Amino acid sequence: MHDTARPAVVLLSGGLDSATVLAIAKAEGYRVHAISFDYGQRHRFELEAARRVAAANEVARHIVIPIDLRAFGGSALTDDIAVPRDRSDEAMNAGIPITYVPARNTVFLSLALGWAEVLGASDLFLGVNAVDYSGYPDCRPEFVAAFEQLANLATKTGVEGTRWRVHAPLIHLTKADIIRRGTGLGVDYGLTHSCYDPLPDGTSCGHCDSCQLRLKGFREAGVSDPIRYA
Amino acid sequence: MHDTARPAVVLLSGGLDSATVLAIAKAEGYRVHAISFDYGQRHRFELEAARRVAAANEVARHIVIPIDLRAFGGSALTDDIAVPRDRSDEAMNAGIPITYVPARNTVFLSLALGWAEVLGASDLFLGVNAVDYSGYPDCRPEFVAAFEQLANLATKTGVEGTRWRVHAPLIHLTKADIIRRGTGLGVDYGLTHSCYDPLPDGTSCGHCDSCQLRLKGFREAGVSDPIRYA
Repeated sequence: MHDTARPAVVLLSGGLDSATVLAIAKAEGYRVHAISFDYGQRHRFELEAARRVAAANEVARHIVIPIDLRAFGGSALTDDIAVPRDRSDEAMNAGIPITYVPARNTVFLSLALGWAEVLGASDLFLGVNAVDYSGYPDCRPEFVAAFEQLANLATKTGVEGTRWRVHAPLIHLTKADIIRRGTGLGVDYGLTHSCYDPLPDGTSCGHCDSCQLRLKGFREAGVSDPIRYA
Repeated sequence: MHDTARPAVVLLSGGLDSATVLAIAKAEGYRVHAISFDYGQRHRFELEAARRVAAANEVARHIVIPIDLRAFGGSALTDDIAVPRDRSDEAMNAGIPITYVPARNTVFLSLALGWAEVLGASDLFLGVNAVDYSGYPDCRPEFVAAFEQLANLATKTGVEGTRWRVHAPLIHLTKADIIRRGTGLGVDYGLTHSCYDPLPDGTSCGHCDSCQLRLKGFREAGVSDPIRYA
């Protein structure tokens, strides 16, 4: 990794998807800057996971931006609303769940955009997924395309002719495909955290939508999940 | 103002423009929720102004979101870079100034979008201006339109059929027009703050781009500016 490599900003949640995306960005030769958000999420263990993943990958820089979305309320991930457990595939795919955080990816991409512009980067990497996507509107290809267009209009570099690119390399992959891809790139999934509702010591519950999708993905990929479950 | 009025979220910086926009939203019958951002701006007196304007207008709620854009650097408004003084009209209109904050309006609108969705609002009001706009790319009509489109794709309510509207009622007005409009609506400009580089006691410098545009606007509107200058 040379200092002359093109810089890119990777949104790093600490989950399985973003760890895979970071590995993809590195494999494509970008000098990776990772950005994470402390947004009052109840699963704050993922921030520790983000730090572990960033360190293991020797990123150029990792910043954690505090942005308290609890001020708004309205989501099971940031509010005092119970996280759903043991939902069927049908239930998980039937509309937008209570774990939806209003405008979350819009907020996160906007902040990544600002940092990227300061760094002289015009490439953002985002681990959204429209297959096993839990019904979030801001994980779809049309959202990603609309954000690219906005970025071109919103920024100094965009006005000056830079074409922003929001890379969402997982968007059409299943969770099993993602795990296979990451395993091929040497991603250590033991460093990652996915659970929405972990035990006080960080152990994953195994029952929330995120744990269920993760477990199913490892099962289908024929790979064993290195993290602990309750 | 009834509780049954449609809710709207107004981005309130504490400056002349956003105070006028708030008055316009009220005059149009919206139940106004105001959002301000403590982003490490050197002209933090504007946050006090925002609180005064919100209180004087008896908004339904006013929140101030801390979001530290200093983590990125790269702007005279948030970084240790000198604010330009006494620039000519030509200089002010010749490109994007150093007071540009990367992705600022994108970040602010994204956060307003999240709050609005929780409130059940689908109307955002923004005081951007493309005439006396100091060269900021994220103050242009095409930026506003792109954000509306993004909002429709990014949110649960958008996916469910709500059309988001980003109202930018000042976008084609000169500063003098804005002041005339606000004066007609009873805006107390003595509560507002525009200076980028105020004295320690909050007195406006009179020399930065923002003071110059403001003073020129009052002069052209034939109205006297009630705030103090150094």
